[in-house]
Amino acid sequence: MISFENDYIQGAHPEILKRLAETNLEPLSGYGSDPYCESAREKIRRVCGSENAEVHFLAGGTQTNAVVIDSMLNGYEGVVAADSGHIAVHEAGAVEFTGHKVLTVPGHTGKIDPGELEQYLEGFYRDENHEHMVFPGMVYLSHPTEFGTLYTKEELKQISEICRQYEIPLYLDGARLGYGLMSRETDVTLPDVAEFCDVFYIGGTKVGALCGEAVVFPKKAPRHFLTSVKQHGALLAKGRLLGIQFDTLFTDDLYFKISRHAARMAEKLKEVLREKGLPFAWESPTNQQFVVMEDSRMEQLREKVAFSFWEKADAEHTVVRFATSWGTTEEEIEELRRLL
Amino acid sequence: MISFENDYIQGAHPEILKRLAETNLEPLSGYGSDPYCESAREKIRRVCGSENAEVHFLAGGTQTNAVVIDSMLNGYEGVVAADSGHIAVHEAGAVEFTGHKVLTVPGHTGKIDPGELEQYLEGFYRDENHEHMVFPGMVYLSHPTEFGTLYTKEELKQISEICRQYEIPLYLDGARLGYGLMSRETDVTLPDVAEFCDVFYIGGTKVGALCGEAVVFPKKAPRHFLTSVKQHGALLAKGRLLGIQFDTLFTDDLYFKISRHAARMAEKLKEVLREKGLPFAWESPTNQQFVVMEDSRMEQLREKVAFSFWEKADAEHTVVRFATSWGTTEEEIEELRRLL
Amino acid sequence: MISFENDYIQGAHPEILKRLAETNLEPLSGYGSDPYCESAREKIRRVCGSENAEVHFLAGGTQTNAVVIDSMLNGYEGVVAADSGHIAVHEAGAVEFTGHKVLTVPGHTGKIDPGELEQYLEGFYRDENHEHMVFPGMVYLSHPTEFGTLYTKEELKQISEICRQYEIPLYLDGARLGYGLMSRETDVTLPDVAEFCDVFYIGGTKVGALCGEAVVFPKKAPRHFLTSVKQHGALLAKGRLLGIQFDTLFTDDLYFKISRHAARMAEKLKEVLREKGLPFAWESPTNQQFVVMEDSRMEQLREKVAFSFWEKADAEHTVVRFATSWGTTEEEIEELRRLL
Amino acid sequence: MISFENDYIQGAHPEILKRLAETNLEPLSGYGSDPYCESAREKIRRVCGSENAEVHFLAGGTQTNAVVIDSMLNGYEGVVAADSGHIAVHEAGAVEFTGHKVLTVPGHTGKIDPGELEQYLEGFYRDENHEHMVFPGMVYLSHPTEFGTLYTKEELKQISEICRQYEIPLYLDGARLGYGLMSRETDVTLPDVAEFCDVFYIGGTKVGALCGEAVVFPKKAPRHFLTSVKQHGALLAKGRLLGIQFDTLFTDDLYFKISRHAARMAEKLKEVLREKGLPFAWESPTNQQFVVMEDSRMEQLREKVAFSFWEKADAEHTVVRFATSWGTTEEEIEELRRLL
Repeated sequence: MISFENDYIQGAHPEILKRLAETNLEPLSGYGSDPYCESAREKIRRVCGSENAEVHFLAGGTQTNAVVIDSMLNGYEGVVAADSGHIAVHEAGAVEFTGHKVLTVPGHTGKIDPGELEQYLEGFYRDENHEHMVFPGMVYLSHPTEFGTLYTKEELKQISEICRQYEIPLYLDGARLGYGLMSRETDVTLPDVAEFCDVFYIGGTKVGALCGEAVVFPKKAPRHFLTSVKQHGALLAKGRLLGIQFDTLFTDDLYFKISRHAARMAEKLKEVLREKGLPFAWESPTNQQFVVMEDSRMEQLREKVAFSFWEKADAEHTVVRFATSWGTTEEEIEELRRLL
Repeated sequence: MISFENDYIQGAHPEILKRLAETNLEPLSGYGSDPYCESAREKIRRVCGSENAEVHFLAGGTQTNAVVIDSMLNGYEGVVAADSGHIAVHEAGAVEFTGHKVLTVPGHTGKIDPGELEQYLEGFYRDENHEHMVFPGMVYLSHPTEFGTLYTKEELKQISEICRQYEIPLYLDGARLGYGLMSRETDVTLPDVAEFCDVFYIGGTKVGALCGEAVVFPKKAPRHFLTSVKQHGALLAKGRLLGIQFDTLFTDDLYFKISRHAARMAEKLKEVLREKGLPFAWESPTNQQFVVMEDSRMEQLREKVAFSFWEKADAEHTVVRFATSWGTTEEEIEELRRLL
Repeated sequence: MISFENDYIQGAHPEILKRLAETNLEPLSGYGSDPYCESAREKIRRVCGSENAEVHFLAGGTQTNAVVIDSMLNGYEGVVAADSGHIAVHEAGAVEFTGHKVLTVPGHTGKIDPGELEQYLEGFYRDENHEHMVFPGMVYLSHPTEFGTLYTKEELKQISEICRQYEIPLYLDGARLGYGLMSRETDVTLPDVAEFCDVFYIGGTKVGALCGEAVVFPKKAPRHFLTSVKQHGALLAKGRLLGIQFDTLFTDDLYFKISRHAARMAEKLKEVLREKGLPFAWESPTNQQFVVMEDSRMEQLREKVAFSFWEKADAEHTVVRFATSWGTTEEEIEELRRLL
Repeated sequence: MISFENDYIQGAHPEILKRLAETNLEPLSGYGSDPYCESAREKIRRVCGSENAEVHFLAGGTQTNAVVIDSMLNGYEGVVAADSGHIAVHEAGAVEFTGHKVLTVPGHTGKIDPGELEQYLEGFYRDENHEHMVFPGMVYLSHPTEFGTLYTKEELKQISEICRQYEIPLYLDGARLGYGLMSRETDVTLPDVAEFCDVFYIGGTKVGALCGEAVVFPKKAPRHFLTSVKQHGALLAKGRLLGIQFDTLFTDDLYFKISRHAARMAEKLKEVLREKGLPFAWESPTNQQFVVMEDSRMEQLREKVAFSFWEKADAEHTVVRFATSWGTTEEEIEELRRLL
């Protein structure tokens, strides 16, 4: 059985486990105040080209979204997202739980269109009843999106300018950021992200860590952010668990290397899928690939290969997802080729 | 430098790291549905003598308290705790963040007095204005308490009966449960806890895990608890991280063995402190020991030994805490003896 | 200047002010426990044909929606509404403020289609990821809708059956319920509403009261509902203010008489608008009428008549709303005819 | 039967009902934008000696407390109150419902001691763990307190200075403010309140209105406060109901006249109680008087006079409360004298 089910099916990159073992008995202070956290922060500032950035570590993506969004919004504000955005659909209402509405604009294979965003914001303030409505207080993007697609540098720039014009922060959910940055088809770099966004996170859980996301505030974190993290139940006592992982990921470019590997594996996977005549549901330049499959073929393949159901295409076809990750091997791709 | 600063200064018990490494590349399904989680649940049910218990894994203590309390209370209810209870003081208002008040009764070196609890509940319903007040909807205990103290079996039984009479659940915060159960001075067993409580958690973070707490509902978890966990941002994608840790802790009684070790180290620590003429601030039968120290002596000792400030005793004395853990060694105790 | 701006431009029906004055100096107990509240409850039970109904009085519509929805949902649930529903758009996120998501289905001139609702619910439970999503825990309808449209008895019945099949309550927002019930084009009666819904409110603010909505639970209110009302800041000390108003409205059918008057005025208004060649934006059988007007004509008319902007139709036309109410006079309609 | 049960047993001052009737059919815009609201605001600014104050009208006290506190606190902050403060005890957890903790300091017959407040704030920031605790983000006073007591001008000044030193707003709950200001035993004026506080409310519900509280921000209201009010379900469509009431109360000093009347009636009441040998539970200079009564005498009196139970004093005695209001008459006092 080989698995392309998702990008969190395995544990951590072995280097991370090695470092956890090496440092295991050192007595360290808690809550993110240990030297490994500090070292990881410094390395992240460097790769972001953002020397004054504040960096915090949280355990998972939904948690990070809820804490960041809640701590940056005013009480009367909501967050604008694509209607397919993770926070809008698959986080069990974690943002609403903190009291804020997710305001949706149409997603285009997961992406917000800058023109439509601008129109929405203009329309909001032109509406005579807008004081009876939830104010748009932040824009949320995922990059790569839930559809595996990427914003261009120009699109990010436009969205960033719109946000700055309306004086609302831009937040980028980078659960799979590495896989986006290492795509051959992107012109976006990590310093670009740090320049255009007011806050973003570098995903660890899906890119080689056991758990953990690094939240980066290029300019300034909200006041007493640590207390907000604690209040949301998101502060790990053993902050070292996150610090050591991110310190390892940002030593010798490990994060980028393993992301590049997954990107290369995705290219090979695409070749195999194309070669086997499976039509792509849409074009994705990252580690998630979506194809339309006959239901009978899908059932047969499932006996040997794990992959995910995405949605029904029609009565006899299904859109399915194959994901590569830092752990995917060439052998697995070849095995898939053989089985298809 | 030796450290008695707290019980989460080190990483994980080495056996846990070993198991994480051994299972690292196995592809496993996410969110707690993997076989290691299932195996851990089964082992926990067995040691609790509670074969129908539902068991869930969360990452940390404050998170666990917030999720459990919020998902078990009705909207108009609060949780009753000792005024020194962790949820009342040191969780940055995580319970209030979910909309519920922490209702306090006097703590007696951290413990709720059954008689006073009963009086409070009786008084509440007798108050003609009680419909304008927050209903007591749950009782929260920590065991061991923040003061290192323990309830007797009889006290737990009484509190449990009071809760059942008022039809409100009893919740026991077992952040340091192992250290309590393995004290020589307790008559409380894990099956007792499962019998008297409606929900409790077995602390991992402070008892040998990198992170993680096992929530046990001896009878029944609230409906759709997994969704509540997700909504609170508390669901780890790689549930294996918690499952493997707890599976390891409950294999060959590791949890109890390492807890017993910490308890034995605490006994030796007590001897040393007593021998050195340091008066105990109060009697603690568990891994945390509190003594009154002259400020000058404290400053001097701090150069060689890490321990924690608890509170000022008077102008020239301070109450300080020494904690042992699964990782404390006899050599460290001897070194402390030498240094005092 | 005559006004069709909305249905809350005037104070209260004079009979209400008269009763408030007559009872003004009587010392009465607070918080809804006075005999006028009790009398109003009894009369409402009678007109609803629902002798065991629990009836509570609140001050306004958004408040009522937030309190009712929050107190009936479980923590992990949201409320399903048409995307144009008042709670989804014009209540400043009052539902999300209580922690619950508003889940939207397409509105058809304000109405939920029973077939689409069923499809949504089926689809939700068929989705393999639904445990990571907000559970649909209630259905919210407005009747009349924000577009002035009405559900037929058959539609309400179907929606009710769907809700009962999925074991979720059906809630009807009756801010303008009187104007709906007294339309010539409805087959829905108040006992029908009480039969099909698990909770609904009879709007007072827009139907002759100074303020106030009567929430009716035909079977049973949530436990300790009064405390929930207080907790949401919605409990008036002088409950008499609401009790006397509703007691007056439900004495000698005043509520129905004044609603019928508004409905008759709306019919005359429609005649005038039709006669003057103003195309209706959509067909509304109730007190709100929506027509498309040339912008120049609109500007001119605004000098003499108050009405509301609804939305731009195209570059040179606007959809505008004219509303009648219990206070609209035939003279005002005639004056409008003259001015158009 | 005569009643001293509380200060909201009757409707409104007759002048208010008269004005409501006179203005009843005028078409007015909603949500507080009508000219009566504007006029009331202007008059309130004048009596407060605070020409730039922002004034908003809400319906009731608990609502006002929740909206004001929530909209002025940061997410990680709580509000400091006396342990007997209304928000701490008798508002069903309305503040916690908005996610904020009520942090209590000891009350001295309802009052916060400036020295103890300072000590609490100093102690908070000195505590090494304070980042794990709820930050004190505001101070809440009630004046008069729930015990009828009053702060002196000097005490208010001191508390105000402490708040300014810690850069947190001071909020004064003036549910019975008129009765405090018109006490013969106070040196505090309304302009003093406006000078020392960052926000306060002038209570209407208990001082002659049907409902309503006027919130005054002497300097500046939080941004988009109207939207916050709406989001909390606290925005009345017919804002006129509040505007006309407050406009009437602040025309020809009505608010002060009726408050003074209640204060004079309280003085007479005190004489009667003293004359009849009833010991005062504590000294109150305002409209609420608390005496200790033998239980048998209490039961007997209750047949003819309404008053409230406060608390048991001992096995055979009870503390009871007698309240005067704008509506209390000399005849009622005389009747009480006769009956005692």
